[in-house]
Amino acid sequence: MKKTELITNPDGSVFHLHLLPGEIADKIIIVGDPGRVGMIGEMLDSVRVRKSNREFSTITGSYRDAEITVISSGIGTDNIDIVVNELDALANIDLKTGIVAEEPRSLSFIRIGTAGGLQPDLPVGSFVATSKAVGFDGLIHFYEGYEWCLDHMLADALATHLEWPDVLAYPYVVEADASLLEKLASGLTRGITISTPGFYAPQGRRLRLEPFDNEINDNITSFRFRGERITNYEMESSAIYGLSKLMNHKALTICVVIGNRITGEFLNDYKPAISALVRQVLEGLSS
Amino acid sequence: MKKTELITNPDGSVFHLHLLPGEIADKIIIVGDPGRVGMIGEMLDSVRVRKSNREFSTITGSYRDAEITVISSGIGTDNIDIVVNELDALANIDLKTGIVAEEPRSLSFIRIGTAGGLQPDLPVGSFVATSKAVGFDGLIHFYEGYEWCLDHMLADALATHLEWPDVLAYPYVVEADASLLEKLASGLTRGITISTPGFYAPQGRRLRLEPFDNEINDNITSFRFRGERITNYEMESSAIYGLSKLMNHKALTICVVIGNRITGEFLNDYKPAISALVRQVLEGLSS
Repeated sequence: MKKTELITNPDGSVFHLHLLPGEIADKIIIVGDPGRVGMIGEMLDSVRVRKSNREFSTITGSYRDAEITVISSGIGTDNIDIVVNELDALANIDLKTGIVAEEPRSLSFIRIGTAGGLQPDLPVGSFVATSKAVGFDGLIHFYEGYEWCLDHMLADALATHLEWPDVLAYPYVVEADASLLEKLASGLTRGITISTPGFYAPQGRRLRLEPFDNEINDNITSFRFRGERITNYEMESSAIYGLSKLMNHKALTICVVIGNRITGEFLNDYKPAISALVRQVLEGLSS
Repeated sequence: MKKTELITNPDGSVFHLHLLPGEIADKIIIVGDPGRVGMIGEMLDSVRVRKSNREFSTITGSYRDAEITVISSGIGTDNIDIVVNELDALANIDLKTGIVAEEPRSLSFIRIGTAGGLQPDLPVGSFVATSKAVGFDGLIHFYEGYEWCLDHMLADALATHLEWPDVLAYPYVVEADASLLEKLASGLTRGITISTPGFYAPQGRRLRLEPFDNEINDNITSFRFRGERITNYEMESSAIYGLSKLMNHKALTICVVIGNRITGEFLNDYKPAISALVRQVLEGLSS
């Protein structure tokens, strides 16, 4: 493998995350905001690893009997491409030789994030677990051999409903890991989440520039497929779900709805809700 | 405008950047790595603003006679969607009322970054100015009315040459601002840059998963259009160039080639080269 493919730093750590192979747990909480990693670290019983580079901050420690890594991805699916590939490389590739492990480790990724609600009955501050992630970002299409892991029926129905333009990446749909959904999201609202490759026009916002379709949010709100509906926008889950399926990892996203795009309601002080959600996930991961 | 469209924080600052309208200069250096902002701040003669949230760190100060803002975008075009729209809102929209200025300010964005070289004669450590940016990310297609700002001939030729899959966003091509290119990149190597929405398969890398086209980098290297060639990969310029054209801002990217994807050469200690490039840009902006 060329030095420019799986890049390592002089200390042997993986290029962007600055982590060494022994520094990650099998249970990994992914947050967007680097500032949230320290906050979650304070909830752990002990911390044995602290690393930081660019928007990637990492802590590994223990909560009750569970070893847990908390890492920030920064915003967007392009960052997720980096985070999931590099975490997988740490777990499953010899960073010196490039040789892949014969029996790869399977990691569990739980993303905790913030989202914009797309149904009027989802108040700000509520939690939503992503049963299926829809990617408007196209990342999975850059990979080979992903067809088996997608829900093509849902993608086609949505593309038809939204009169999806040919110039945009075709939407892709990936299911949450069923065991994580069962374990960590029992009793929570579930729904389909759309991951967008931007925050303004890609989420139907209009500031100085207009989105390609001014009706897109209304059309997303009214979409139904076999009794399911789209609950929220965020910017990372499609890629976490898609790459995880391809690498045999498990993935689940739970978000706090901080704005409701239909009612216009917005929650500025969302940190207590994030803390409560983190505590709930930590309890679930350690039980 | 709904509270969820142009979101502000309790102190009146814009949502992600945490900046107030008076806190940005017309000349703005954009870097990817938040850690680089402080390093550039030390080169300024004085600093009047320091703000930080998530991967967005900002300094505004002066270098000789010029007022300059330095901001980190984090990685990827989804972050650029946030940075450029929010900087434009700070310059041109009343954050309280949502009313757009009658005579909008035009900002100059100079991105300084790192890149992967795609021609064998580009040694690591060299500087490349982006004459045209190609977007594999699709961001511009989420906006309305962008057709006039694209180089469709180049995009079509490249899509044909690469046998571009329909499921991916159609490549879009935007030129650098001619005046910035003249002023800041005289004497530098120039070339076409491809911005990708990921670092691994989207840049033709293969770790545990394979890219959709194992030959894509060779085909990019061999592509020629009216005497121009593609020099490098990075992850932000297409969106900076595209959104800037649509909003009448000026944009230019200059990168340090830190890896050469053809020869496999990689430069671990690239910080001195970044410093030298920053110094050169600061001199250009203040002369």
